[in-house]
Amino acid sequence: MFKADYLIEYINKAVNSISYPAQPRGLYEPIEYTLSGGGKRLRPLLTLATCSALGGDIGAAKNQAIGVEIFHNFTLLHDDVMDKADIRRGRPTVHIKWNESTAILSGDAMLTLATQYMSRCDAAKTWEVMTLFNRTAMEVYEGQQYDMDFENRDDVSVEEYLKMIRLKTSVLLGCACELGAIMAGALDSERKAFYDFGIKLGMAFQLQDDYLDTYGDPTVFGKKIGGDILNDKKTWLLISAMTEDNSGELKQLIGNNAIAPNEKIARVKAVYNTLNLGERCHELIDLYASEALTTLNRARIPDDAMDFFTTLIDATRTRVQ
Amino acid sequence: MFKADYLIEYINKAVNSISYPAQPRGLYEPIEYTLSGGGKRLRPLLTLATCSALGGDIGAAKNQAIGVEIFHNFTLLHDDVMDKADIRRGRPTVHIKWNESTAILSGDAMLTLATQYMSRCDAAKTWEVMTLFNRTAMEVYEGQQYDMDFENRDDVSVEEYLKMIRLKTSVLLGCACELGAIMAGALDSERKAFYDFGIKLGMAFQLQDDYLDTYGDPTVFGKKIGGDILNDKKTWLLISAMTEDNSGELKQLIGNNAIAPNEKIARVKAVYNTLNLGERCHELIDLYASEALTTLNRARIPDDAMDFFTTLIDATRTRVQ
Repeated sequence: MFKADYLIEYINKAVNSISYPAQPRGLYEPIEYTLSGGGKRLRPLLTLATCSALGGDIGAAKNQAIGVEIFHNFTLLHDDVMDKADIRRGRPTVHIKWNESTAILSGDAMLTLATQYMSRCDAAKTWEVMTLFNRTAMEVYEGQQYDMDFENRDDVSVEEYLKMIRLKTSVLLGCACELGAIMAGALDSERKAFYDFGIKLGMAFQLQDDYLDTYGDPTVFGKKIGGDILNDKKTWLLISAMTEDNSGELKQLIGNNAIAPNEKIARVKAVYNTLNLGERCHELIDLYASEALTTLNRARIPDDAMDFFTTLIDATRTRVQ
Repeated sequence: MFKADYLIEYINKAVNSISYPAQPRGLYEPIEYTLSGGGKRLRPLLTLATCSALGGDIGAAKNQAIGVEIFHNFTLLHDDVMDKADIRRGRPTVHIKWNESTAILSGDAMLTLATQYMSRCDAAKTWEVMTLFNRTAMEVYEGQQYDMDFENRDDVSVEEYLKMIRLKTSVLLGCACELGAIMAGALDSERKAFYDFGIKLGMAFQLQDDYLDTYGDPTVFGKKIGGDILNDKKTWLLISAMTEDNSGELKQLIGNNAIAPNEKIARVKAVYNTLNLGERCHELIDLYASEALTTLNRARIPDDAMDFFTTLIDATRTRVQ
């Protein structure tokens, strides 16, 4: 049971077997398109694995696993409209392939579809599931709002940044885990342990995202290296550098479009290197990864489940794309 | 209890007492702005009145009444982005006052907020409430999609139009009523009767909207008369006229921007008048209104409740704004 490939195959089958009404096609086609775009399926993987680790049958958490994946894809769809992003997973985004109204409306429908899957469980569990899911969704929007607010601020602190990625990314991973625990009928303490595990894993995951955008291997990363630097994106690296750089070099580079892209990337990276930020970022990732592991020890789970999550943490910490 | 003014006052108090987190202001301020914009509060009025008519305490349906009003306002917010509408209830729309990203994200948060209010009830009722609410939400999106699809079609039938407004407008009124019935602990037959009542009322309500846009009294309507005609909006009037006009006059007018606005309104209206469409539209409204009344007779409710709903149907049928 604790094979990632098997679980992801199970999720893909479940997502691909969602049946959509035939009409109106303009509403349902973009949803099908979005959900067939692949992706890591990390969140539903966490839901199923947690349910299984805590003694539940993965079938019992299937609807919630699908729901959390639909919700995640809904946030990407609307984020792409807000960011005016043209490409997602190597394909045109919905607002490019169709139009913006379609992207807004199909996204709304995905949020409701996610909520429908969430609520499909024993009536006795609906209330708990809905409470967790709705609270998490509000937190994710708060994270997105902070992320947008940060674009117009020069005084964002590292603490504020960590709070933002906790909301925008980590809470959904925590929620994905806790949903699995609820569906397994786990104890409150186990639910909490797995929620905290998801939070720590999410922090490591998002910081690794930031790290790879600057320090990734261009031959395997899949996107161009340095996109965050060119967009002056407030990542952990940039915010730390803005706080610590006394040379004045960074101030000359941020918001400066007169410099050639490759030169800007090289010079910002040089500032990072002077401050040893690449290594320090990875120390922070490793810290969150080790905290994730500690958290897991609070729940009593079988050895094969522990091996699975340990491997998952390690894969997050060392992933290259 | 069956005084519309009292119930609307109760709803306004409830909506105004929603407490929003202080941060991030960029997310919550537009929600507060949207919900403080007033409006008829028709949907929550239906929820509370139905609950009371079926023997429930209105307090028992308060959260669902708030939820249905938030949901309705969420659809208006996102519709205004899609329609690029600048003004709503005499004030700038959210995407004008802030920006489009804010309008999308705040709308998403309103949908989740609505869902949160919906799910706030006896755990034993959460499943029923969520099932009804989510199904209704999907239908509303379908209606909006059909409405957008109709813009690019010249062969929309009256039947298709009636199906569209049933989805876009009526099902939410049906849902609002049924929520009240669920919270009152009503019988299935009573739930169904009130759902059907809401559907019929919604049809009369939307057709009256169409009617007023062309035949309203400009001194009391609140908007300019003839907006639908100038936008070639596929209303019951225009679709009926497109089907029945053999003079060729309408074909010359639709999509024609070379004609002065006032002349276009006058000439399209002349086609409507030749076909007697104003009167026939009102006959259809009266038919739905009388069916709404018949439907109510299927539920046994006290006389004062019956008087209240009868007055409401009549007010819908004869409203001037």
